Amino acid sequence: MRILVSNDDGYFAPGIAALAQALSEIGEVTVVAPERDRSGASNSLTLDRPLSLRRAANGFHFVNGTPTDCVHLAVTGMLDHLPDMVVSGVNHGANMGDDTLYSGTVAAATEGYLLGVPSIAVSLVSKGASDFSTAARVARDLAVRFMNQPLRQPMLLNVNVPDLPYEALRGTRVTRLGKRHKAEPVIKSVTPRNETVYWVGAAGAAADAGEGTDFHAVSEGLVSITPLQIDLTHTGQIGMVNDWLVR
Amino acid sequence: MRILVSNDDGYFAPGIAALAQALSEIGEVTVVAPERDRSGASNSLTLDRPLSLRRAANGFHFVNGTPTDCVHLAVTGMLDHLPDMVVSGVNHGANMGDDTLYSGTVAAATEGYLLGVPSIAVSLVSKGASDFSTAARVARDLAVRFMNQPLRQPMLLNVNVPDLPYEALRGTRVTRLGKRHKAEPVIKSVTPRNETVYWVGAAGAAADAGEGTDFHAVSEGLVSITPLQIDLTHTGQIGMVNDWLVR
Amino acid sequence: MRILVSNDDGYFAPGIAALAQALSEIGEVTVVAPERDRSGASNSLTLDRPLSLRRAANGFHFVNGTPTDCVHLAVTGMLDHLPDMVVSGVNHGANMGDDTLYSGTVAAATEGYLLGVPSIAVSLVSKGASDFSTAARVARDLAVRFMNQPLRQPMLLNVNVPDLPYEALRGTRVTRLGKRHKAEPVIKSVTPRNETVYWVGAAGAAADAGEGTDFHAVSEGLVSITPLQIDLTHTGQIGMVNDWLVR
Amino acid sequence: MRILVSNDDGYFAPGIAALAQALSEIGEVTVVAPERDRSGASNSLTLDRPLSLRRAANGFHFVNGTPTDCVHLAVTGMLDHLPDMVVSGVNHGANMGDDTLYSGTVAAATEGYLLGVPSIAVSLVSKGASDFSTAARVARDLAVRFMNQPLRQPMLLNVNVPDLPYEALRGTRVTRLGKRHKAEPVIKSVTPRNETVYWVGAAGAAADAGEGTDFHAVSEGLVSITPLQIDLTHTGQIGMVNDWLVR
Repeated sequence: MRILVSNDDGYFAPGIAALAQALSEIGEVTVVAPERDRSGASNSLTLDRPLSLRRAANGFHFVNGTPTDCVHLAVTGMLDHLPDMVVSGVNHGANMGDDTLYSGTVAAATEGYLLGVPSIAVSLVSKGASDFSTAARVARDLAVRFMNQPLRQPMLLNVNVPDLPYEALRGTRVTRLGKRHKAEPVIKSVTPRNETVYWVGAAGAAADAGEGTDFHAVSEGLVSITPLQIDLTHTGQIGMVNDWLVR
Repeated sequence: MRILVSNDDGYFAPGIAALAQALSEIGEVTVVAPERDRSGASNSLTLDRPLSLRRAANGFHFVNGTPTDCVHLAVTGMLDHLPDMVVSGVNHGANMGDDTLYSGTVAAATEGYLLGVPSIAVSLVSKGASDFSTAARVARDLAVRFMNQPLRQPMLLNVNVPDLPYEALRGTRVTRLGKRHKAEPVIKSVTPRNETVYWVGAAGAAADAGEGTDFHAVSEGLVSITPLQIDLTHTGQIGMVNDWLVR
Repeated sequence: MRILVSNDDGYFAPGIAALAQALSEIGEVTVVAPERDRSGASNSLTLDRPLSLRRAANGFHFVNGTPTDCVHLAVTGMLDHLPDMVVSGVNHGANMGDDTLYSGTVAAATEGYLLGVPSIAVSLVSKGASDFSTAARVARDLAVRFMNQPLRQPMLLNVNVPDLPYEALRGTRVTRLGKRHKAEPVIKSVTPRNETVYWVGAAGAAADAGEGTDFHAVSEGLVSITPLQIDLTHTGQIGMVNDWLVR
Repeated sequence: MRILVSNDDGYFAPGIAALAQALSEIGEVTVVAPERDRSGASNSLTLDRPLSLRRAANGFHFVNGTPTDCVHLAVTGMLDHLPDMVVSGVNHGANMGDDTLYSGTVAAATEGYLLGVPSIAVSLVSKGASDFSTAARVARDLAVRFMNQPLRQPMLLNVNVPDLPYEALRGTRVTRLGKRHKAEPVIKSVTPRNETVYWVGAAGAAADAGEGTDFHAVSEGLVSITPLQIDLTHTGQIGMVNDWLVR
């Protein structure tokens, strides 16, 4: 099995090293990841300049672009064969609820999905210094399962793994995305040159973290797996907006 | 009515000037937009550095960040009151089908929506040098309608306007997002310094442009209005993935 | 007379508007400046991506690059004729002593000089909100003088103007660059995401600000004019290093 | 001896690996280099955002900033002791004549010099895929010489090494900087999105490459060593500009 690995924390991040290591036990792994930390990159594409592709001493490739750029370039311009899977991560920090919208980790997997490749994004629910081996092993388990029993539909899975030893995981749950409260306001600060600047604030606390959500699963010690799609149409509002326009 | 205006083409773009002009006839307009062209920015947020907010000679504000940063900063750190609407655009070029995922124009409106503000993204379906007055007038019409008859639900509308004189528009259609074929491959090129580089290729041609889609409406000379939401959960796959995991 | 105007504060800065205004009274002015604030850019050139050239509503051109890029592109790729002068500024803040090494304002003028065009960098010695009219008028005076009595040698002048009304200036002095003490250390800070970051510290205080230096002239209320060259060879050390190598 | 190593090609470049390796045989080496290729960065400093300092798997540190930022941050904010030397390189490509003005490699050494540390910039005169071991060994030789016989003056040496086996080097020459002809014009190009862009052109050919210059030494198979200083005052023009102003 050929597996393309990417992330948004940069090719040098420990999370991607753990992931590549775990997946190389079961397939042929190619790593193509951003040359610098692109957390928060969402699905951004670089359109105003061309991309460079380089190879690090450890064999990982890196691109001066976004996670989406990396997968796009690898699949359409670098690899000889379409990969059998794209696996993105292991992200340092959760990607749950509305966060998925901003996440570069999820975006890398989404680009794989849009290019016709079954794709998985894997994130570790942890804020501190972290051990990525559990999450990497979960990713490998899913890849093995996929290899043995491929899904017949296009697949884009968003996986969040509790920060526990592998043996302490309480299982797996298929979930829907929860919701967060509004983000915290920007934080005003003054630079040493006396200029006012603003840091983007923290994500909001979970608002819908009830039964069935990713937030809930993880809080129970379960691996959360959310199948995603990319059609943002609010089908339920089409009639209402129609009425509104003719009133 | 207080209206926050943003875009992804940059605060200096003619599309945002036309939009601000049209909306200032019906409300109090504040413009906060990126200092440079951020097309393709998607929902990316700037997390590794703080943002600066400046004011141009014409009163527009600009931020050294993404479209999402602009709306986030304006709403949570700059404006005294929550705006009544966020209007993003007028983008130079369509944002239909899967493009919405990559679009900074749609992302600016999405950020407004996530912060609790009814929001509209407006794009002009045109590739060449363009007249933004029709699209700006369409945006104003929608804002007036909203002012007179507010929707009772959270609102995020993606509006695409054909490149026609206002009088030549054949009406308005509420649509779902179409789908595109896979994007074109990256385009390999060599720099004057003899380095191989890759340009991200063009978006794919429309694949699902049938009746009911945004592609179809615009091709008929109609303004396309797609209500959007932001939950990417693939609800229809939850059962299947469950089965898959227990097999 | 054809004058190319650039700066490092960005095309939207009030200092360049004042300069372009003053110079347009005596010649044909073209403005090509960075699209964003590039203070501290030194002579940096953009080599890893191509540059875009755009035109703002007020007729100024802007480039997604450094001050050096702007002058380089304008002279070698945009203007039909070699300009008679390059004038860079008016910078917001002094560029004296060792600062000239880091200054993008001086770099824009240096690029003109390297391309064979007599060039002037103009800076306003002020930290606060500023009136650029005095410095702009000084620049115009110098350009008029140059127009009437061209220098027979290549010319690169670094001009620093005290923050005084034009009538209060006490004259002009030709100076050498002073020296600064070492820069202040970086300032450690913690981001809202709990990451340690470092701000580059302030420039050092003047160390050699004696008679004959730019620091001294300005402190006396005089316009400081320092002729510059670009050969960094330490001629006085050639013998000593030779001895050292054969010991 | 404590040696701080930096470059402008990025911390992952083979040239800095060879340099760190060679110097670690004679002293305690700390590497702090840019996280991405910053060729052409000149003395640029990052003033509008703070810097992050990270540690790669091989022990090298990297900074999301310029070569000047790296040395500035390392010396004023990271190292416990002032280093005994700063060595920058090995750059992939020559830094001779006017190039020194644009070079990030030279700039990193210059920052060391300004902070009171004897500093050396080392470049390999080669365009193709390269063997950096000769240049790294030359750098080590100079460091050993400096360790045994420190210079009594502040020292900033710009070293260019021919692309030859170490044994084939014909010796060392102390040189002055040569001069180049004007740079080649920008190269106009069209992006896949039909936008006109401009690549900065190549450096000009050597114009003053006569006896005594760096160009000349290298062409003879000699290592070129140019002592540099940073005062750009054109002392020889002070009288003439004085006359000009009073005419």
